[in-house]
Amino acid sequence: MATSATSSELPSLDKLITSRLTGNELEEYNRIQYGKNKYDELSIAKANLELAEKHNFEIAAYNFPTKNEELRSARIVKIGVIQHSITTATDKPIVEQRQGIFSKMINIIEAAANENVNILCLQEAWSMPFAFCTREKYPWCEFAESAIEGPSTMFLKELAARFGMVIISPILERDEVHGDTIWNTAVVINESGKVIGKHRKNHIPRVGDFNESTYYFEGNTGHPVFETKFGKIAINICYGRHHPLNWLMFGINGAEIVFNPSATVSGLSEHLWPIEARNAAIANSYYTCAINRVGTEKFPNEFTSGDGKLAHNEFGHFYGSSYITAPDGVRTPGLSRVKDGLLIGKVDLNLCRQVKDKWGFTMTQRLNLYAESLSNAVKNDYEPQIIHSN
Amino acid sequence: MATSATSSELPSLDKLITSRLTGNELEEYNRIQYGKNKYDELSIAKANLELAEKHNFEIAAYNFPTKNEELRSARIVKIGVIQHSITTATDKPIVEQRQGIFSKMINIIEAAANENVNILCLQEAWSMPFAFCTREKYPWCEFAESAIEGPSTMFLKELAARFGMVIISPILERDEVHGDTIWNTAVVINESGKVIGKHRKNHIPRVGDFNESTYYFEGNTGHPVFETKFGKIAINICYGRHHPLNWLMFGINGAEIVFNPSATVSGLSEHLWPIEARNAAIANSYYTCAINRVGTEKFPNEFTSGDGKLAHNEFGHFYGSSYITAPDGVRTPGLSRVKDGLLIGKVDLNLCRQVKDKWGFTMTQRLNLYAESLSNAVKNDYEPQIIHSN
Repeated sequence: MATSATSSELPSLDKLITSRLTGNELEEYNRIQYGKNKYDELSIAKANLELAEKHNFEIAAYNFPTKNEELRSARIVKIGVIQHSITTATDKPIVEQRQGIFSKMINIIEAAANENVNILCLQEAWSMPFAFCTREKYPWCEFAESAIEGPSTMFLKELAARFGMVIISPILERDEVHGDTIWNTAVVINESGKVIGKHRKNHIPRVGDFNESTYYFEGNTGHPVFETKFGKIAINICYGRHHPLNWLMFGINGAEIVFNPSATVSGLSEHLWPIEARNAAIANSYYTCAINRVGTEKFPNEFTSGDGKLAHNEFGHFYGSSYITAPDGVRTPGLSRVKDGLLIGKVDLNLCRQVKDKWGFTMTQRLNLYAESLSNAVKNDYEPQIIHSN
Repeated sequence: MATSATSSELPSLDKLITSRLTGNELEEYNRIQYGKNKYDELSIAKANLELAEKHNFEIAAYNFPTKNEELRSARIVKIGVIQHSITTATDKPIVEQRQGIFSKMINIIEAAANENVNILCLQEAWSMPFAFCTREKYPWCEFAESAIEGPSTMFLKELAARFGMVIISPILERDEVHGDTIWNTAVVINESGKVIGKHRKNHIPRVGDFNESTYYFEGNTGHPVFETKFGKIAINICYGRHHPLNWLMFGINGAEIVFNPSATVSGLSEHLWPIEARNAAIANSYYTCAINRVGTEKFPNEFTSGDGKLAHNEFGHFYGSSYITAPDGVRTPGLSRVKDGLLIGKVDLNLCRQVKDKWGFTMTQRLNLYAESLSNAVKNDYEPQIIHSN
């Protein structure tokens, strides 16, 4: 089995709570929890609901109402994010494992196309198991592929062109030009099926089973913003969500939507999950999309987790719960904790600047002060500003 | 009336939800919402509960369990934060308004002393109404006082010495030495009743009724950390919580606890409230304490809110909901949305470094990269890193 039974897992905390509240209490919950203006739930085409039921994935779509401006037309964009489990046992041939994921992905991407999604982002290392817990180099390094013409890119280029959709494809990248090094990379494919660039993960974890620094290094692509037909987008890959400066630089470079393709498990981070990507949306006045994989992945050989516990074969539970936050902090409920899913946000990118005008966070940011403070702080002889009690 | 009836306000969202869940569902809620390790609730001395009931305030106390280390002794500290409403009509003499708050504050501070609180922080501009909504300079500017020998400082110095407690007193400061300017300032008084320093609010809002830039300027005290008998503390005043760089610099300077004395109302920010101070604790591996005032304040003259609505006399509802977050992201439930309150956290400051060792956020921070990026970004001819689609 690729993933173990998740029947004991709570399917959704968000749905559990709303099922227990009614009337004014439910309204207050929605106001305080999700934001005053709230999202509207969008209906899904019947054929699409049937497709989702047939292939056992969830579809949810939300609209973020935004005020019309006098001088700028609304810039309505449909964002889609996909969370999914692996499909094939991790001791099967690599091509088989990858093809299993491709096969299920076609259905979910088709559903996104049917709902007229413009920009779609998949989860981190979407076409492979998250095998870094094992610290084994083989066979896992063989999943690494060219950003330009690897199998994941080729598969998605065709779909991007067919559906006229920008697709962000987070993969394990092999850079043959520079020493055959491996990177954790997001490839951006435009609506014509052309790779327009890539971004490499800036911050690499060394925590629990996330031994990723064993496989790849801190990214060397800076903080690029991709100016696509549908808006200015950036990608903060996984562990980068713990770093406010990483989010900040994408904002400074003009991002209107920042995707956070991730892989994280319930024992480690679930209480942080609703906080960090949402905080980034608020602090930087842009949309954020937090995407996490689903299911428990099992590996052929035992590995330890650096926690003094016995060796074992299973990663923890990847809890899904992908969600979208608007620049004003309003957010959608999360997707399922246990099931594949497609989450759609219909947004007006004009909201980013409207929120900057209202909240004034960029105006009051005092970047000059911090450019100077940080330049001092990184010096080896830096003396922290400490005031003693006596 | 100083504050209007709040009977229509929900007293606590946290309590509402937990009252609707039991067994495994409640456990899952607590795990996902507050954090895996969770806090323990501490019992309050009976005499103190009676004191609280008599004076109509809430007391809640929580313990954050922390692992013992081999080489360092535990550094257990009791943190206290107080949220309160004003007591006297805002058209009464200033001395009367201030004395009304002093009188109620004595009881709450005594309760904190009875529970052996070591470090206590009051809310922003705690000894006055939050009158900046009016844009009137008088009488409100008369509340501004000397940080060293003003009435609020003198009142708290005596209590700090009597109870052997560090007290942080956020006031409106009058700086007579530098042009009689007014600042939004937190004064730090040590356990002997001595003022050891002050910090001035770094980021000033211009949003809704928070016309604070009409009264005072962005602070000029940098990011001081106060090394007290009970640990290294800092103060991020109110609107500074929207600025991750502000939180960051207190962390870089070594803060173990950062207080966020605030004043904010439900229509504006309530969906952001559980996010920002908690995110800061996670990102910087320190404790944060978010403190908000309580009640609806009414002013003698009508004012407008810059939202096209009619002139009115009442500020929105200050929703309290003060809470404490540990460096691992575990947090307490919030205090009441409608009532004065004392929130106590029993913490081991050793947890800060333990979390840095575990999560590695400081190690993986790449400050050099960001010092350089920000230094470039603040140049007037900065060219954002944009990759075009074609």
